[in-house]
Amino acid sequence: MSDTIKYTLDEEHLPRAWYNIVADLPQKPPAVLHPGTIQPVTPGDLSPLFPMAVIEQEVSTERYIDIPEPVRDILRQWRPAPLYRARRLEKMLDTPAKIYYKYEGVSPSGSHKPNTAVAQAFYSAEEGVKRITTETGAGQWGSSLAFAGSFFGIEIEVFMVKVSYQQKPYRRAFMQSFDANCIASPSDMTESGKAILKDNPDNTGSLGIAISEAVERAVQRDDTKYALGSVLNHVMLHQTVIGIEAMQQMEMADDYPDIVIGCTGGGSNFAGITFPFIGEKLRGGRDVKVIAVEPANCPTLTKGRYAYDYGDVASLTPLVKMHTLGSSFIPPGFHAGGLRYHGMSPLVSQVTELGHVAPRAYPQLACFEAGIQFAKAEGIVPAPEANHAVRAALDEALRCKAEGKSETILFNLSGHGNYDMQAYTDYFAGKLYDQEYDESELAMALSGLPSAVGM
Amino acid sequence: MSDTIKYTLDEEHLPRAWYNIVADLPQKPPAVLHPGTIQPVTPGDLSPLFPMAVIEQEVSTERYIDIPEPVRDILRQWRPAPLYRARRLEKMLDTPAKIYYKYEGVSPSGSHKPNTAVAQAFYSAEEGVKRITTETGAGQWGSSLAFAGSFFGIEIEVFMVKVSYQQKPYRRAFMQSFDANCIASPSDMTESGKAILKDNPDNTGSLGIAISEAVERAVQRDDTKYALGSVLNHVMLHQTVIGIEAMQQMEMADDYPDIVIGCTGGGSNFAGITFPFIGEKLRGGRDVKVIAVEPANCPTLTKGRYAYDYGDVASLTPLVKMHTLGSSFIPPGFHAGGLRYHGMSPLVSQVTELGHVAPRAYPQLACFEAGIQFAKAEGIVPAPEANHAVRAALDEALRCKAEGKSETILFNLSGHGNYDMQAYTDYFAGKLYDQEYDESELAMALSGLPSAVGM
Repeated sequence: MSDTIKYTLDEEHLPRAWYNIVADLPQKPPAVLHPGTIQPVTPGDLSPLFPMAVIEQEVSTERYIDIPEPVRDILRQWRPAPLYRARRLEKMLDTPAKIYYKYEGVSPSGSHKPNTAVAQAFYSAEEGVKRITTETGAGQWGSSLAFAGSFFGIEIEVFMVKVSYQQKPYRRAFMQSFDANCIASPSDMTESGKAILKDNPDNTGSLGIAISEAVERAVQRDDTKYALGSVLNHVMLHQTVIGIEAMQQMEMADDYPDIVIGCTGGGSNFAGITFPFIGEKLRGGRDVKVIAVEPANCPTLTKGRYAYDYGDVASLTPLVKMHTLGSSFIPPGFHAGGLRYHGMSPLVSQVTELGHVAPRAYPQLACFEAGIQFAKAEGIVPAPEANHAVRAALDEALRCKAEGKSETILFNLSGHGNYDMQAYTDYFAGKLYDQEYDESELAMALSGLPSAVGM
Repeated sequence: MSDTIKYTLDEEHLPRAWYNIVADLPQKPPAVLHPGTIQPVTPGDLSPLFPMAVIEQEVSTERYIDIPEPVRDILRQWRPAPLYRARRLEKMLDTPAKIYYKYEGVSPSGSHKPNTAVAQAFYSAEEGVKRITTETGAGQWGSSLAFAGSFFGIEIEVFMVKVSYQQKPYRRAFMQSFDANCIASPSDMTESGKAILKDNPDNTGSLGIAISEAVERAVQRDDTKYALGSVLNHVMLHQTVIGIEAMQQMEMADDYPDIVIGCTGGGSNFAGITFPFIGEKLRGGRDVKVIAVEPANCPTLTKGRYAYDYGDVASLTPLVKMHTLGSSFIPPGFHAGGLRYHGMSPLVSQVTELGHVAPRAYPQLACFEAGIQFAKAEGIVPAPEANHAVRAALDEALRCKAEGKSETILFNLSGHGNYDMQAYTDYFAGKLYDQEYDESELAMALSGLPSAVGM
């Protein structure tokens, strides 16, 4: 009785609708502001960037939104994703806690990202879009959109943060397998890229810069839209398949989580697993403790400000109210590129402000240590991003042990580490460090926030 | 109706017994000979290398052998593996053929190899073994045994072909995640390694050399056994879970394959998917065309001799009757390390001699081309080894199109390409070539076969 148990849902249990947490929030989300007028954006303002169906989802207050059948048909390839009870891990930790994890690494690109990539590519195709531009940090999002685009005959153009472009050639090759065009950012293809390179030709890029470039390219062309892999409401919405499935699987296990854990970069895998549980609580259902885990050197929820900010460096995106470190903040390098973003999903931010989320930050070494421990027990080497969630799950399980409590812990293992083995190689070689961010740089970035400068 | 269909088996359909094709063969397999006495080996001769339960399976004539529950408990993590109907691929090829593929890349190490690694680690643990030595080429087998060993507390020592050791550091990091000790072969840890390095310090290794080293290390220590990831009868046996599941899934699809395809290196993923179907035929059941696909520059089945040969370079292993290019044959380098072996499973060889297998060989460029075509249609980037099976499936589907026939094709997609993106990078950059083996080298290797030299 010491082995991992798998809870597999039949295909009929692949969710038929996404869950929109906005319907259960006590207040509507703060308005999104136009970067030029600083007035609430209209759907028309967003239409150069997104297909109309996506814009409608972005502002929807409906609780459930149907998942189109062609999207479900593709998700079906790897969904419902398995949920496991990690009994070998429990035994290794000698904890009375029960540890469950939802595994999103079963998708062809190895993470949760295709859940929204497929939906976004579908809506673009429906509206006759020829090309989608986007940015990618660690490469998981770019890979996923490349994968999704190929099914709908949509050309994909990916601005990849230059340091990742150089460090992760294999993610590039993966994208190329699907004919996506991958460009190192900053590039000389855009005005924002050129301006940055003029300033510093050796700039290694950031998500904020890559977003500016992708947005600029989309706006320039009528047949082109833009797609974002996290942060926005519709992305959170599309990821709720994770939590909706997990709720059904916890029911199969005849259990319910006391604690639900996800790592947070832009917030999407976290929202995906937690929002259905938080919604249950908001509607007067069962209580749950929710933990958002972020990297200590990009501590958006624990050290950022809840304020209006741009999503990118060049201030091309709309202003959203979110936890932010300031769009000019450049975190030190570390091996979880997917968590290296100055902002946070406005919905995750709002739910956190309402007190439903307990954020915490971990340095990377502690996360790698947890990831290796997990691998030895459960046989899966997690992505460095996912290691943050693993770390918190282990710490909660050890707390349960210390307190003699048999709590039920559920976390999202958002992706595998197959494309991150350089990080593990460095870790094993003792070449990884816990570099701290510069307090004065953070202070400066925060002081440049639009609200701080009187906007 | 143009989307991929997934056939998912319930966990209760995870096979309870392996299928042993020996029970259905008209003759018993030729005896395995002791390398010293050239007499049939006894179980005692093999006991320094393998646990007794494995030796019994190696010579068993029982049709079904129960899978121990602890082995099933681990396999359950990713098995039953999905079987897909590749309708997007069919549409892309505009073929009347129906194409199905069984996907073994869902295992944590990304290939079919854990199916036998878990069983072998289990039997060793049962008999109190402390350490298992093995060799690995592309790294899939070493990764899988490292993974399996960690669950049973067995130390794993992997001799990795030096050229792969250098080219695939990420496979090494994966093994290290499970605490396996990975050594570049030839090494100075063994007599056979030292002899080879003395001859040529720059020798980049081969599977035959790595096997010699692993066997030598196992024989030296009482608490240590050896494990082989392919070739031997018990490995073929353990892999039949693939075909047994596939038969059930074809039944779910209300279909039966006219053609079953697998790629062949040592023969294990091929045997895994095809033996249950060939067995059905041998017992008077439905006919099936079986295609074994090998690399053109290591053409064991199409250009080798069916003769007694050693499994390794140093002639430390028993002699088995198999298709072989000669244990001294060194194929040119190419990007499917898992298929780069001079010999072939004796059972696959015997079944081929009986006329139940149609072997064919493909050059690598044609295989990569097929792999990319498959990726674009089905969203999975295959391992270079698996691309060989994809190529044959595509060719058969195109033949069906030319002939206007709606045949049913089933192939084994034995692994994903996440650890092989350097090969794809080279392919995209136009840096891959179809290098032919040297005919005179092959002639020389064949002339050195034990039978050729009068043994």
